[in-house]
Amino acid sequence: MTALEDRSTAADDPPMSAAAQAAGKHLWMHFARMHGRDGANPIPVITRGEGMNLWDDRGHRVLDGLAGLFVVQAGHGRRELAEVAAKQASELAYFPVWGYTTPPAAELAERLAHLAPGDLNRVFFTSGGGEAVESAWKVAKQYFKLRGKPAKHKVISRMTAYHGTPHGALAITGLPAMKQDFEPLAPGGFRVPNTNLYRHPEFGGDAEALGRWAADRVEEAILFEGPGTVAAVVVEPVQNSGGCLTAPASYFARLREICDRHDVLLVSDEVINAFGRHGHAFACTKFGFTPDIVTCAKGMTSGYGPLGAMIASEKVIEPFLEPGVTFPHGYTWGGHPVSAAVALANLDLMEREDLYGNVLAHEQAFGDTLRRLLDLPIVGDVRGDGYFWAIELVKDKDTRETFDAAERERLVKQYLPGALFGNGLYCRPDDRGDVVVQLAPPLIAGQAEFDEMEQILRHTLTEAQAVV
Amino acid sequence: MTALEDRSTAADDPPMSAAAQAAGKHLWMHFARMHGRDGANPIPVITRGEGMNLWDDRGHRVLDGLAGLFVVQAGHGRRELAEVAAKQASELAYFPVWGYTTPPAAELAERLAHLAPGDLNRVFFTSGGGEAVESAWKVAKQYFKLRGKPAKHKVISRMTAYHGTPHGALAITGLPAMKQDFEPLAPGGFRVPNTNLYRHPEFGGDAEALGRWAADRVEEAILFEGPGTVAAVVVEPVQNSGGCLTAPASYFARLREICDRHDVLLVSDEVINAFGRHGHAFACTKFGFTPDIVTCAKGMTSGYGPLGAMIASEKVIEPFLEPGVTFPHGYTWGGHPVSAAVALANLDLMEREDLYGNVLAHEQAFGDTLRRLLDLPIVGDVRGDGYFWAIELVKDKDTRETFDAAERERLVKQYLPGALFGNGLYCRPDDRGDVVVQLAPPLIAGQAEFDEMEQILRHTLTEAQAVV
Repeated sequence: MTALEDRSTAADDPPMSAAAQAAGKHLWMHFARMHGRDGANPIPVITRGEGMNLWDDRGHRVLDGLAGLFVVQAGHGRRELAEVAAKQASELAYFPVWGYTTPPAAELAERLAHLAPGDLNRVFFTSGGGEAVESAWKVAKQYFKLRGKPAKHKVISRMTAYHGTPHGALAITGLPAMKQDFEPLAPGGFRVPNTNLYRHPEFGGDAEALGRWAADRVEEAILFEGPGTVAAVVVEPVQNSGGCLTAPASYFARLREICDRHDVLLVSDEVINAFGRHGHAFACTKFGFTPDIVTCAKGMTSGYGPLGAMIASEKVIEPFLEPGVTFPHGYTWGGHPVSAAVALANLDLMEREDLYGNVLAHEQAFGDTLRRLLDLPIVGDVRGDGYFWAIELVKDKDTRETFDAAERERLVKQYLPGALFGNGLYCRPDDRGDVVVQLAPPLIAGQAEFDEMEQILRHTLTEAQAVV
Repeated sequence: MTALEDRSTAADDPPMSAAAQAAGKHLWMHFARMHGRDGANPIPVITRGEGMNLWDDRGHRVLDGLAGLFVVQAGHGRRELAEVAAKQASELAYFPVWGYTTPPAAELAERLAHLAPGDLNRVFFTSGGGEAVESAWKVAKQYFKLRGKPAKHKVISRMTAYHGTPHGALAITGLPAMKQDFEPLAPGGFRVPNTNLYRHPEFGGDAEALGRWAADRVEEAILFEGPGTVAAVVVEPVQNSGGCLTAPASYFARLREICDRHDVLLVSDEVINAFGRHGHAFACTKFGFTPDIVTCAKGMTSGYGPLGAMIASEKVIEPFLEPGVTFPHGYTWGGHPVSAAVALANLDLMEREDLYGNVLAHEQAFGDTLRRLLDLPIVGDVRGDGYFWAIELVKDKDTRETFDAAERERLVKQYLPGALFGNGLYCRPDDRGDVVVQLAPPLIAGQAEFDEMEQILRHTLTEAQAVV
């Protein structure tokens, strides 16, 4: 029985749980409306996970189509990771990497250096992804000061890209609606176009041509600002916001050339893309380029402990190794020993079960399964790579017309989240760019789960057509 | 046998451990010099903790005089917290609070709301402290936009105060040397004097008089900038950087009046101060004021899991509860279910063992024990509150003359960290402001540990006098 068939009616549901009540009164949710959550519109409570599945406080099962939040690579309920956490917490639960280390932090730094491409050999741990991006920008700024180019401090990033929410990472983020209430942010963030082939029909589906044009816009932005003022270009190998936007290897090769030409650091933001999401430890490997810095987090621990990292090349670390030099930056929880031990065990587990191989073996089938939905009038595009796919919803398939504000409100804010979840699929309806539904399941997923996702999406999106 | 007596000589030490070697090559330490760490100057490796003690990879015991980094309130090796972490990780290791909740996040939000003063009833979880400060600033900015005062966005904070390292929190931080390599930061941070009584001898030791003057400087700064542009005043109840700077209740009462007069939010940054560091769940309670927002992290889990929070009053949350309003902000790891479960167990443990009571019972004795060191010529001042004390080192006790750059280099960068650690005490020599040694042990400490700290400090500081 699929989760869809298993749905009971709302009338069967027990009253609001204690957790839902407490959350409604006291929890300030992230990126979510708070109105009426202590009454008519209670907050869904997730109580348990096992493998690909989650259960809520009413006993309903939902398929985890988003790996929590692009996080739970190994799937839920992995007792071996829990046991590693408990062992490390008993032995040494906390010690900072502020002038010291712990064995798990040291070992994980070495492990990540070996997994990273090129000579990206130096690991600065953070609590999570936003802090990794903050750290990359701060490194880039100080790096150029140490090298006698103190004016190089600006960052070029792509339209609609999400790079985190602190005031620096948010300045790099390309989502005006997420920024406008918090301006002025850290000065120095400049935007270039992304590589959304569906929304650049003038390239007639030629990803290489779009890539050349988009890479040239990066060089143009560097020249607009003055190469002497630009420190870094930050891109995700596959851009999350806007809906799993891919680019060919030639795009990244061109970015690499442009950055080298103007002495600008190339940062590959792999907070979502790393650790198998695209079938490799780091996605830049798959797309054939070697950045100067990689930022990562999420999948490193499969979510069993908070952790992030910035991994830098020998070129970048070199001036920081000089006598008397300090990078005056840090985070209390960066390299937390329990999270680091869990990350090591998670990397072991993913190797042992060949989860990256599973992704490479099934990514095509995943895409093909989702592309079946292209027969629905509301589905305009299906795109992605690895276990990271987006379904773009449109008002008119022929003209690719998107929805207006009122339709987005009904579709993305009101209908889809509850309908998908109610039908047994946890995934991500999103309209930070155009309207998409995103899928990024645990890396253990196979055809049975792809089919279940497709079935629930087909049912829900068919009904959604009546909403807009 | 004290740790000091237990010292073996360096000649007895085994060769560099694998962890030290790996860290020397691949770990980018926080706030630390990196030169020569893969050779002559290896990174110390902490391998194990139990209660008040830590052990390094050479088998040496050191007394933890800093609770990791103002974190490990309950002490090291608490198996019950490790077991709670494992249980939650097995059941549900990760799910975000982005429109959903988990039982531990909901329960912890409710628990924190009950512990917080006044009607600070709404909890926004973060990964850690810097993100909590970032979140407080972002809330303050949007709060005033929602209330029709969109120009109110600036923050007033105190000289030498540390509030975190992302580009927003760093703009609030009052340490120019920590900021200069990363300018321009988020615009809108403005500084006022702190309440360092030792460095304001013109007040003749009258903390109330200094407090009146310092609070009035906050109002002056608001007027300088224009009340219509100021969103928040951010202060720690006891300021960390600069060395455990206290202020009387009258100072905070005056800040509260000033903030109310100018419609400015008062933020109590308790990342270090909360969860018993001063014998109360929240330090603002001890100092008799109710802020609009509290930021906290560290001690909430005693370090057994990364977590932070921003706790807001009913006044602050109110405009965010209106229909259609979202706070477009969040963190993947905020409210992590394992960390939240650990926090709940840690709060239980601290209540059951009355650790806050232990602090209140012994804080005076802790201060008295450290004040014995005032007989040393190098010790100029001993100050603090609760289990949070600083020893200010001076070149001339009569004139209170501090050290010059070369002396600081020898004393704080070269001599003290290794000497203290080598003599069996892990604590914090710091010269971000004047030169201090900071002590902030786990809350389980008693007179035996105070005596051991005093003994090692006496020995080390006596020898230090020959260095400068």
